[in-house]
Amino acid sequence: MQMVIKKESISSFFKELQDEISLGLETLDSGSNFKEDLWEREGGGGGRTRVIENGAVFEKGGVNFSEVFGKAPSQIFKTLEQDDKEMGDAQFYATGLSIVIHPRNPMVPIIHMNIRYFKLCDANGNLISEWFGGGMDLTPHYVVDEDAQFFHQQMQLACDTFDPAYYPKFKRWADDYFYIKHREETRGIGGIFFDRLVTEEGFDMNNHFEFVKRVGNAFLPTYSTLVERNKNLPYGQAEIEWQQLRRGRYVEFNLVYDRGTTFGLQTGGRTESILMSLPKTAEWQYANRPAKGSKEELTLKKLVKGINWVG
Amino acid sequence: MQMVIKKESISSFFKELQDEISLGLETLDSGSNFKEDLWEREGGGGGRTRVIENGAVFEKGGVNFSEVFGKAPSQIFKTLEQDDKEMGDAQFYATGLSIVIHPRNPMVPIIHMNIRYFKLCDANGNLISEWFGGGMDLTPHYVVDEDAQFFHQQMQLACDTFDPAYYPKFKRWADDYFYIKHREETRGIGGIFFDRLVTEEGFDMNNHFEFVKRVGNAFLPTYSTLVERNKNLPYGQAEIEWQQLRRGRYVEFNLVYDRGTTFGLQTGGRTESILMSLPKTAEWQYANRPAKGSKEELTLKKLVKGINWVG
Repeated sequence: MQMVIKKESISSFFKELQDEISLGLETLDSGSNFKEDLWEREGGGGGRTRVIENGAVFEKGGVNFSEVFGKAPSQIFKTLEQDDKEMGDAQFYATGLSIVIHPRNPMVPIIHMNIRYFKLCDANGNLISEWFGGGMDLTPHYVVDEDAQFFHQQMQLACDTFDPAYYPKFKRWADDYFYIKHREETRGIGGIFFDRLVTEEGFDMNNHFEFVKRVGNAFLPTYSTLVERNKNLPYGQAEIEWQQLRRGRYVEFNLVYDRGTTFGLQTGGRTESILMSLPKTAEWQYANRPAKGSKEELTLKKLVKGINWVG
Repeated sequence: MQMVIKKESISSFFKELQDEISLGLETLDSGSNFKEDLWEREGGGGGRTRVIENGAVFEKGGVNFSEVFGKAPSQIFKTLEQDDKEMGDAQFYATGLSIVIHPRNPMVPIIHMNIRYFKLCDANGNLISEWFGGGMDLTPHYVVDEDAQFFHQQMQLACDTFDPAYYPKFKRWADDYFYIKHREETRGIGGIFFDRLVTEEGFDMNNHFEFVKRVGNAFLPTYSTLVERNKNLPYGQAEIEWQQLRRGRYVEFNLVYDRGTTFGLQTGGRTESILMSLPKTAEWQYANRPAKGSKEELTLKKLVKGINWVG
């Protein structure tokens, strides 16, 4: 028998996780505080945006919860390849937790996590479709093998509890998704990415919810370890300059390719919540090429698809 | 009798203008030098990218010529709303000059100009269509009325020689084009923007070419005046910070909305030449709001469509 999942239990989990993660990051950042903005969406719902700026460890970042619903905008039908006319009175519900953290020290990696639930009903409230999506990925300014291995092992652990096919599939998906086509490089070392987890043989929505919880709960212990390992490492002007250039690439990916960002900006999403993902500062140089054999060049060689980090 | 226009005469003009403008900007920048990169396109043609970095007056900028041709890529047909199958063996030719200059002093405006010619022929070399496009627009970090008026007067002068309807039409087009929808603000104070100037009653391609020449020739005297007026004005940390945020908006426009940029990046254009338009540095802050009555707030109030600068 298939269990029906309550959307309130999903949004409650996302909100509690937001509390836990923002508290955890504040502790990591020697007591810096997130600034909270509560906002409402005109057509229904709203969100709880939490931003940290100019912390001791985190230069800029956000831990954003949202829960929006109402008449489904026609752009959604295009994305779903559904007929506009048939769907005219459909209602949607979407809730999610999005995190991006840009650390100050170039030796600490940028992290991103998003977990989300989406549901579409007809005018009478009958379910048309629902799914979970999400993922977590890491963008080190300098790729350190041990850290990359640790991160991917944590992702694999979260996946393997549910299905041994998950990690390889979702890892490949992240490689393909977080790819800066015009630079021919990945945004970072990837992680996992999944979308449209619907009810199918052996997995109902409750299984998917448990998986999403497992991924969400992996964020804090995983990132805390990476921050603690690296936050006191020394760095100089060369590392800062490289960090700025890598942040430039992060901006390029988010504004040119990231579907959540471009779709959100073009369909009237809350701009400030969406663009919390951008770093405080970024730089561009014409045709920058790191010196042969430098640690910057070594990093570029590892920003490619298909690296097996879990051996 | 309609005169046939030679594409060589167009590309020659663009190349000569590139020489003249890069020399003029070098002189303005106390003798800093543009770095030249010659490049070839795999399918045919190439370009002459000229970039200035870390000059005394100009922090980063490019004056780029290109002339590319060959088998028309299928994305072009989509843009032209032409049937893919019919056009299978069509050949294209495109040449243009693109300029973006990011000055160091926040009191000096960013400028952008693009002039271009495009031609499509069938497999037998018969002309399918050809047109000119282009424009020039100004992005001051601080809007100064006298400078904005001067700039628009120069644009109007260039237009009025050809058709009194041009300036109002192309000014509105620039307002609509250089609009950052998700910020509800224009990129700068606009200027003129035009596209697909084809042969029509009273205007053949030679008339259009003369108009494009007139616009191109207006660049150096117009921008030189604005640079000379403002380059020695004093500024402090507050002005630099505001400049960084305005540059952030410039990045947002170019990567999210600018058709030349997004089309170029996604269809295998030369990334480094396209992204010369990005500033050296840029910044993002969460929900920045300038203080009431500040000069920054005054600038924001003027970053709207429909201001009549030529009264």
